[in-house]
Amino acid sequence: MVNIDKLYESVAAKGNVCVGLDTAADYVPPAERRKAASDAEAVLGFNKALIDATFDAAACYKVQIAYYEEMGIAGLSVYAKTLQYIREKGGLVIADIKRGDIADTATRYAKAHFAGEFEADFVTLSPYMGMDSIEPWLQYAGAGKGAFVLMRTSNKGMRDFEYLALPDNKRVYHKVGDKLSDLATVHFGKYGYGLFGAVVGCTEREEAAEIRANYGNLFFLIPGYGAQGGAADDAALLLRDGNGGVVNASRSILKAWSAGSVDESKADNTFAAEAARKAAVEMRDAILDAVKR
Amino acid sequence: MVNIDKLYESVAAKGNVCVGLDTAADYVPPAERRKAASDAEAVLGFNKALIDATFDAAACYKVQIAYYEEMGIAGLSVYAKTLQYIREKGGLVIADIKRGDIADTATRYAKAHFAGEFEADFVTLSPYMGMDSIEPWLQYAGAGKGAFVLMRTSNKGMRDFEYLALPDNKRVYHKVGDKLSDLATVHFGKYGYGLFGAVVGCTEREEAAEIRANYGNLFFLIPGYGAQGGAADDAALLLRDGNGGVVNASRSILKAWSAGSVDESKADNTFAAEAARKAAVEMRDAILDAVKR
Repeated sequence: MVNIDKLYESVAAKGNVCVGLDTAADYVPPAERRKAASDAEAVLGFNKALIDATFDAAACYKVQIAYYEEMGIAGLSVYAKTLQYIREKGGLVIADIKRGDIADTATRYAKAHFAGEFEADFVTLSPYMGMDSIEPWLQYAGAGKGAFVLMRTSNKGMRDFEYLALPDNKRVYHKVGDKLSDLATVHFGKYGYGLFGAVVGCTEREEAAEIRANYGNLFFLIPGYGAQGGAADDAALLLRDGNGGVVNASRSILKAWSAGSVDESKADNTFAAEAARKAAVEMRDAILDAVKR
Repeated sequence: MVNIDKLYESVAAKGNVCVGLDTAADYVPPAERRKAASDAEAVLGFNKALIDATFDAAACYKVQIAYYEEMGIAGLSVYAKTLQYIREKGGLVIADIKRGDIADTATRYAKAHFAGEFEADFVTLSPYMGMDSIEPWLQYAGAGKGAFVLMRTSNKGMRDFEYLALPDNKRVYHKVGDKLSDLATVHFGKYGYGLFGAVVGCTEREEAAEIRANYGNLFFLIPGYGAQGGAADDAALLLRDGNGGVVNASRSILKAWSAGSVDESKADNTFAAEAARKAAVEMRDAILDAVKR
């Protein structure tokens, strides 16, 4: 079964939450961080605890490589171990790497992130250089691998280039969606979604219904929930029958343990993991409720 | 002195060649590869030999991280050592990483690639998500760091999105150039070039003069030479008084040793480095000649 079908079934079973493991060392409870041999090891222990606790409430995980790269080689080793831990448990993981490069280089990247030490189930890609920077990743379609290509992101800067209006009244991001939608008519899974989906933020409410309607064969990775301003109702507009998308949250789950009147010095990974689970379940239920409305 | 000024002076002294160390293990002479403890070590030895041999003929080096990522953690360690080797010799190195992400993430990436184990002098960035994905890298402007942002790349796929025509008769890539040009009026070096320049391929001859004229304060990183079809005359059109740009070549330099009727089994790194030097010098002189025409 291709990964996009596994993701569809995971959403059907567990809801729409994608837990973003954008784990900075200072997100780890201080007591655990002091105990660990290094910041990288502290992050790995924290990640494992949160993965265990959220496993039945999360459709998938997204690991933002920047937070690991920041810690150098040791951090990238923990990045690899985090992906491996999720995959060995039978979970699905999106490598948030936003690669985009000429075909020869894309082929190298695809080997790096779809096979070997850094193997992920999905990657994120950037479309600026065009479809010949996306297509080489399809060499791993036979292995079921998938991708989410940046289409309309959740940050304010998306207005600079993604949002530029074209003479046919479409915007640049529509052209990206159109190309992805074409690709999805060739490479798709049994639930009708293309192996390669799109990143669409839930921060622009007024366009969400139009985007969902026009790109029916694209599965969405939806950032912008919580800290960036998106709510469950906004995210629900980008889903179809409650499926066809996963909604990412990172800080609101990773740092749930430090919210409220907690004595931070006494918190440990078990405490953090329980708080993360509670935050993930609440988010899952809020989205399920919004879908029903 | 900021890095863009160092690069300007390096071009004035050594010409416009940027040696692209996109080193796959199978670019290394077989005898050397067999001798090495691992493919990653083979690549490091090869890189060092080529850096030594080309040092006085190359304005700078560009290291494409994909080729190292493909080799996993060991490869990324060799990536770090290659950057370090160039910097310790007093050379300038561009980390070809094409990052582009929301501000919080960009801040993590900037720390990863402008400080610590992976420290480079310049990085390449992708503009799709907008200027708030570029600006966090300017936190290292005070340390002299620079960047080259994708503007109009050298691959065929650039026509998909970069090249889309807008109602004001500009293309998407012009809007990227305009924003970078604005940024360069705030952050610039003593030769008038912005700390952050642009990637402009030398594969579209007819637009080169217009781009050079309209973006006078942008230093260009110019791919597409040689294997991708660009010639010295094309590259020269993107320069100004012979400066203001570096022209990247990778395979034509790295694999120069295997051209012609060589007995590949007898080649070693010394042989490869001499061939690389010859290729770099010829390319440098061809561009210098083209500038004079």
